[in-house]
Amino acid sequence: MTKNLMNHVEKTFGVTFDDESVLVEAFTHSSYANDHREQNIKNLERLEFLGDAVLELTVSDYLYHKYPNQPEGQLTRKRASIVRAESLAKLAKEYRLHEFVRLGKGEEQMNGRNRPSLLCDVFEAFIGSVFVDQGMDVVLEVLKQILFPKIDSGAFSHGMDHKTALQELLQQNGVVTIQYKVVDKRGPDHQREFVVEVFVEGDSYGRGVGRSKKAAEQNAAKHALESLEQGNQS
Amino acid sequence: MTKNLMNHVEKTFGVTFDDESVLVEAFTHSSYANDHREQNIKNLERLEFLGDAVLELTVSDYLYHKYPNQPEGQLTRKRASIVRAESLAKLAKEYRLHEFVRLGKGEEQMNGRNRPSLLCDVFEAFIGSVFVDQGMDVVLEVLKQILFPKIDSGAFSHGMDHKTALQELLQQNGVVTIQYKVVDKRGPDHQREFVVEVFVEGDSYGRGVGRSKKAAEQNAAKHALESLEQGNQS
Repeated sequence: MTKNLMNHVEKTFGVTFDDESVLVEAFTHSSYANDHREQNIKNLERLEFLGDAVLELTVSDYLYHKYPNQPEGQLTRKRASIVRAESLAKLAKEYRLHEFVRLGKGEEQMNGRNRPSLLCDVFEAFIGSVFVDQGMDVVLEVLKQILFPKIDSGAFSHGMDHKTALQELLQQNGVVTIQYKVVDKRGPDHQREFVVEVFVEGDSYGRGVGRSKKAAEQNAAKHALESLEQGNQS
Repeated sequence: MTKNLMNHVEKTFGVTFDDESVLVEAFTHSSYANDHREQNIKNLERLEFLGDAVLELTVSDYLYHKYPNQPEGQLTRKRASIVRAESLAKLAKEYRLHEFVRLGKGEEQMNGRNRPSLLCDVFEAFIGSVFVDQGMDVVLEVLKQILFPKIDSGAFSHGMDHKTALQELLQQNGVVTIQYKVVDKRGPDHQREFVVEVFVEGDSYGRGVGRSKKAAEQNAAKHALESLEQGNQS
């Protein structure tokens, strides 16, 4: 399993560890260490402690330079949406980190391998292990591959309302005019529906329907975001 | 004032800024920026956002290596006692950072210059500004002068109970036997006092008196800590 893990990390992230034991520690859940208590095995928690702080700083630094004119409050909200457990768990799964975790038997039987909190812990511990073994520059190389492009494409904006997310995405490189216009009202008074169209610098980016103007605007922004994301992928 | 600030930072920390404006930003409170809104002055909050993360990582890394055998929970508690507002405010004052802060008039009149939250913010912003202008290595040089020796001497153990703090201080370099012994009980039953003596590897380190055994032990540990701290200073 150590061999497989080393190979996976080399192939996926281009990182070769000097001390394999640090990498193995990052992929050892406490339940495994408990199952083999007589062997005095280290679990991932200390590396997770460190990796959490490494991510906090690297993401803060990235946002600080990417958004030179945004006030602290917006940076703090963005950082929170990126380093929260749900986001990191998704990354762990995308890069198949969970497949290499050493788990205790009970934990395995209860499908612990796919629990979001475990996935997030493993991601943080992995980043911690790269930091300990290879240093900050290599951590940044890894994050340039797997995390920063996602920030640029707005992948962490899901916690925000759609209008804010659309604005954040479009205004990365400067102020852009975004307008929401009611283009239709339909249905009887007690079942009124609004149709809102969102225009960016005068061009239509999407439409949304809702029982209130506000709901229709949110839906229009949502559709605009979806078509922008499809555009990025194609 | 900019000249004075630069001089103070050079003399006190040995750091010369390439871009003075970053240092000035770290010492500009939002109340000052608000008082001079027409000049569009940057306040310290973005640098504070960054400095907070820089401190989180540098302290985590320091503790990770200093205590190679301590579990994550203890590292987390230690880190919290170091980076909490009260501790950082004390550091800001000790190094007279508050004297150089640009404050709004109202804030100045209300003695904002000495408010712990402002002091803490300025300390974090200062660390952020060193990181932005000079990079991590210079941050570490500063912290080696002003913060890490305090960690070593147990200066942040005040949040802990005295017995824990004494244990933390003494066991930095390995396990040490600490024993508490009741050496006297005095007073009538309804006003009983206990006298406890604390022994480290068999040597007496201090005595404490209390209305319960537990309180007497805490006081003995407190006195032991005090005499150890005096020993460190002399």
